[in-house]
Amino acid sequence: MEPGKESRVLVIGGTGHIGKHIVTASVRHGHSTSVLIRDATPSDPAKAQLLTSFVDSGVALIKGDLFNHESLVKAIKSTDIIISAVGPRQLAEQTRIVTAIKEAGNVKRFLPSEFGSDVERVHTVDPVASLYAKKVDLRRLIEAEGIPHTYVCCNGFAETYLPSIGDVTTVGAGPPTEKITVLGDGDAKAVFVVEEDIAVYTVRAIDDPRTLNKIIYMRPPTNILSHNELISMWERKAGKTLHIVHITEVNLLEWIEEAAFPLNILLSIALSIFVRGDQANFEIEPSFGVEATELYPDVKYTTVDQYLNRLL
Amino acid sequence: MEPGKESRVLVIGGTGHIGKHIVTASVRHGHSTSVLIRDATPSDPAKAQLLTSFVDSGVALIKGDLFNHESLVKAIKSTDIIISAVGPRQLAEQTRIVTAIKEAGNVKRFLPSEFGSDVERVHTVDPVASLYAKKVDLRRLIEAEGIPHTYVCCNGFAETYLPSIGDVTTVGAGPPTEKITVLGDGDAKAVFVVEEDIAVYTVRAIDDPRTLNKIIYMRPPTNILSHNELISMWERKAGKTLHIVHITEVNLLEWIEEAAFPLNILLSIALSIFVRGDQANFEIEPSFGVEATELYPDVKYTTVDQYLNRLL
Repeated sequence: MEPGKESRVLVIGGTGHIGKHIVTASVRHGHSTSVLIRDATPSDPAKAQLLTSFVDSGVALIKGDLFNHESLVKAIKSTDIIISAVGPRQLAEQTRIVTAIKEAGNVKRFLPSEFGSDVERVHTVDPVASLYAKKVDLRRLIEAEGIPHTYVCCNGFAETYLPSIGDVTTVGAGPPTEKITVLGDGDAKAVFVVEEDIAVYTVRAIDDPRTLNKIIYMRPPTNILSHNELISMWERKAGKTLHIVHITEVNLLEWIEEAAFPLNILLSIALSIFVRGDQANFEIEPSFGVEATELYPDVKYTTVDQYLNRLL
Repeated sequence: MEPGKESRVLVIGGTGHIGKHIVTASVRHGHSTSVLIRDATPSDPAKAQLLTSFVDSGVALIKGDLFNHESLVKAIKSTDIIISAVGPRQLAEQTRIVTAIKEAGNVKRFLPSEFGSDVERVHTVDPVASLYAKKVDLRRLIEAEGIPHTYVCCNGFAETYLPSIGDVTTVGAGPPTEKITVLGDGDAKAVFVVEEDIAVYTVRAIDDPRTLNKIIYMRPPTNILSHNELISMWERKAGKTLHIVHITEVNLLEWIEEAAFPLNILLSIALSIFVRGDQANFEIEPSFGVEATELYPDVKYTTVDQYLNRLL
């Protein structure tokens, strides 16, 4: 970054899955970075350790809360760019950030919590459809209020899908050794992006005029793969053939109906990604979007191939 | 049931994982049963089929919505007992049901959406801690408003935990064949209850004076098992020994911090159930609770042993 081009960045939800990578990337990029936190001495040791590492790297912890309007306005007034990475339970509460941004009046860019598929170009069912609808509502509010913004559609988190080689029925268990579950015919293209790269592209986008009031999509060319392609890539590396168990779209819809929370959420997300191909089944038109690897070709992103090597 | 003892039962959230079993159990028990539905002809074929089966069995579909106060009051006025089985996204919105019950003035018993561990006796972290807090808030509101109630703490859904033999990292994938993940030392006692039985006990409780303003816990004696005991039971049946991979409590807390939604929710629930033993680590005192299998010893519940036979 050129000297004097640093921004002041506030991350809300900076201790979450993607938020903490964004905080790290922002600091590394040279931005003056703050994180809004409710509690500077959390009882959860893992969270306490994370906050310590933030402070050690030069992050400012700002005590505040989505539900405390005054604290929010105060934190926003001393920053240029707001990145929200709040979790699903707080998506709708981001209207409070919009209200505070309007009152503060100084924000150059707001990135609401998106970090997934493009919620206006998905084809899925509840329970995730209702969650996505909240993100759409927030987009309309941001636009109606005239707030400069960027929507980050990073597509699939690598750490969620790749360790199980795309098998959402075993997410968290590591690579399958015998059988693997494929939803639909396995030919729909999905997109996998490693969290650290998502954070780097996001931080590059925050002060880029080309991403102003646009959607930035992440579609690293080597990381657009069907489930069948992903499985073949893994089988070659692991030197073994997996027994594929198919679940048809109709059966998946029935399963979503029957499954308990939170499995039903995972499955309704997977319907969109792995069966309906919603992450790569449309053209990115300049009128609404830009693509991250085209904008920032100098970023050496992690390929799926490289990521799978870590699992061997 | 004795003739003339039928109740009029309204189920809100009657198409969900536990709701549909409650609807079925209520009809079978002879109650005049209604389900509040937003849309009588849903586009989702699985949901449409479920509604057809409801109607065929004599259930009345009542068009209405949590967010339409008038429709809610109207539906409530023509019933005696309200069972809410709404999902996590609508937990907080149940305050709307409370408001409508107060206005209607005729409800003999309200069962809010609980159907899990006792949310006032759990020891876990976010993200599920915040969800549980919403259930606690609703309890306080119900009590403050003086609404006759029963809280159903059915403990673990069998269909969520037993098909993977309690391995929450492979929920949805069927029984493990080689290795299984155990959280903590695997000695904490969990409780597993088959969904159909949860529904039967719930329906028995709705007009029972012994459950009025009490928590009804489900702890079928044969179904209170540690993860180690569950695994041993399965190994004997399947005739094979699984390689156990332990995740310590400290590592689980770190994983919850790092995991993306919705895996982090599943893990924070699992911390409470499998590591901290929150479903069976306290005495049920008569001042606040009753136990279902003691109240209804005639109900022939499905044992874990029987359930596992289905998986062979």
